[in-house]
Amino acid sequence: MTTKIQETLNLQIPRSVIYEHGALRMIDQTVLPGQLTYIQTSDYREVIDAIKRLAVRGAPAIGIAGAYAVALAARELERTNEVSRIDALLRMANEIGNARPTAVNLPAAVAEQVEIICNHGESDFTTLIERLEEQAHKIAESDQRMCQSIGENGADLIKPNAKILTICNTGALATGGIGTALGVIYTAHGQGKAPKVFSCETRPLLQGSRLTVWELQQAGVDVTLIVDSAAGMLVKSGEIDIVITGADRIARNGDTANKIGTYTLAVLAHAHNVPFYIAAPESTFDPETESLDDSMIEQRKAEEVTHGFGNRTAPHNTKVFSPAFDITPKSLITGYITDTGIKSGGRK
Amino acid sequence: MTTKIQETLNLQIPRSVIYEHGALRMIDQTVLPGQLTYIQTSDYREVIDAIKRLAVRGAPAIGIAGAYAVALAARELERTNEVSRIDALLRMANEIGNARPTAVNLPAAVAEQVEIICNHGESDFTTLIERLEEQAHKIAESDQRMCQSIGENGADLIKPNAKILTICNTGALATGGIGTALGVIYTAHGQGKAPKVFSCETRPLLQGSRLTVWELQQAGVDVTLIVDSAAGMLVKSGEIDIVITGADRIARNGDTANKIGTYTLAVLAHAHNVPFYIAAPESTFDPETESLDDSMIEQRKAEEVTHGFGNRTAPHNTKVFSPAFDITPKSLITGYITDTGIKSGGRK
Repeated sequence: MTTKIQETLNLQIPRSVIYEHGALRMIDQTVLPGQLTYIQTSDYREVIDAIKRLAVRGAPAIGIAGAYAVALAARELERTNEVSRIDALLRMANEIGNARPTAVNLPAAVAEQVEIICNHGESDFTTLIERLEEQAHKIAESDQRMCQSIGENGADLIKPNAKILTICNTGALATGGIGTALGVIYTAHGQGKAPKVFSCETRPLLQGSRLTVWELQQAGVDVTLIVDSAAGMLVKSGEIDIVITGADRIARNGDTANKIGTYTLAVLAHAHNVPFYIAAPESTFDPETESLDDSMIEQRKAEEVTHGFGNRTAPHNTKVFSPAFDITPKSLITGYITDTGIKSGGRK
Repeated sequence: MTTKIQETLNLQIPRSVIYEHGALRMIDQTVLPGQLTYIQTSDYREVIDAIKRLAVRGAPAIGIAGAYAVALAARELERTNEVSRIDALLRMANEIGNARPTAVNLPAAVAEQVEIICNHGESDFTTLIERLEEQAHKIAESDQRMCQSIGENGADLIKPNAKILTICNTGALATGGIGTALGVIYTAHGQGKAPKVFSCETRPLLQGSRLTVWELQQAGVDVTLIVDSAAGMLVKSGEIDIVITGADRIARNGDTANKIGTYTLAVLAHAHNVPFYIAAPESTFDPETESLDDSMIEQRKAEEVTHGFGNRTAPHNTKVFSPAFDITPKSLITGYITDTGIKSGGRK
């Protein structure tokens, strides 16, 4: 079940979501890197639960899991004597689509399944299940190809032995393929360029240390972990050749929302004349949004900051400001690495 | 045992190191903020242990603890029949001075005690003990006055309701008085200016969340905790009026070594035209050092990053780059708040 690009590169890149024989198999990302555990289920409710508790995360991976969850729900209804199975299935699909409202891929993927359900009607439920599975495969494969294209386009920017700084997890764990920013790194690695990656740990949830370091290690990519605040010294030291991050949303004016800390990396890269790239599929560009504003940004729970990972590390009643994302203006972005090519940013 | 400034301000500022009736009482900073526990001891070996395991930390606080530890060692020898008590005492002083080699105040404070011991000679051990205790008091009081002066000088820069960003712990827990950067904040608070503080959590050891938030809360100062990587968004949002940090060492050219992350704050402050000040006593200016270089910076233990919060949060065999400090050039510093006044930095 390895993807084409993985076979080509011969890398041991993990896959976060796999559908086989009517069951979905997902890496439980909440217990990484301590354990590599899979959630294997035919129950769409368990998929919802996995999405809610971030066992599966990354907008593309969530979208893929959601599309398969609709197929699982249909399989479950096929085994029942429910009279109006289509109505029941649409209710279940709605439940799946609402599992995590902020991830744009999930409602989009479920909407595609809902369209198939509505067009199909009550008769021949077995064919409907096949169609839903096919559509979920299509979404997964499309994401894989998108990652591959981003990787190939971006790898052209990577010189042999390049030192690359990144933040959060934008790899195989977050997508249906090799990832976005990490997709570029995997592809460069596969081309024998031996990139050396510095991964910001990415507080508060440590996706960098828990997930990015883990998956790069699996694939044999050289990776070094830093605390987020060490990025300044690292960039200043001349150690970094290029900064590449992912994106949650890109507005029409090029404003890019991504994991908190991304803006700081862009400022540091600019101050030291290091190229700063965003790696994201075309679908991340949101034509509906002219620009982005800090006021739109959701706050994370205070406990993620005050209780680190098991221990209380701040006093009781500590006020916390913990924005999930920040916004990097186009003027600090050298370029956008997309599946259709590289677009210029606004950095002079 | 409150200091003059504390009485004046009527603030509940904790004291990290207090000497009473031949015993040293130190706040155990390793268990804050969960517990407020004191280490009370007449055994200089326990003081060394407290310094080594960071139960007492902050260069000035360590220097004060070390000076008192020499007095404790002398008291212990007075109770013995040791023939050459002066030789024994010098050996003990040497042991104390080496408890933590990087903190400059510790060897300096112990050197002052050694000079007293050498000048005094073997006879009249009781007077020697008094002299050592007096000298330790002098060091503690001098540090108190220094903090008070820094606070008063710096408070002139703070406008009513100013929003202040800081990093690490530079307060009462780290010094013999009200601190350096936090001394400025306490003084402004005492003047009724109601400053609002944003404290970077300060990975890897979280001195910001564990210590700074705690001591500011004790004193009734408004404080909000952020992850280090949120500083960029916060400064960009226009929320911050001034950034003030401490310093570990300042070279003749104005290069300032301080906690990792300080340089990033200086770059962000510069990018957004927010004043950036270093608060430090004159003694932090090192006339022996022309400039500072990243290569001089010690690396922290990898485990502080990979096991930060009681649990393993990075894979086995993770390579870690974890510099203890970074260096901020004078060109990014608006000014230095010292006990003798405010010196101009090099920022245009």
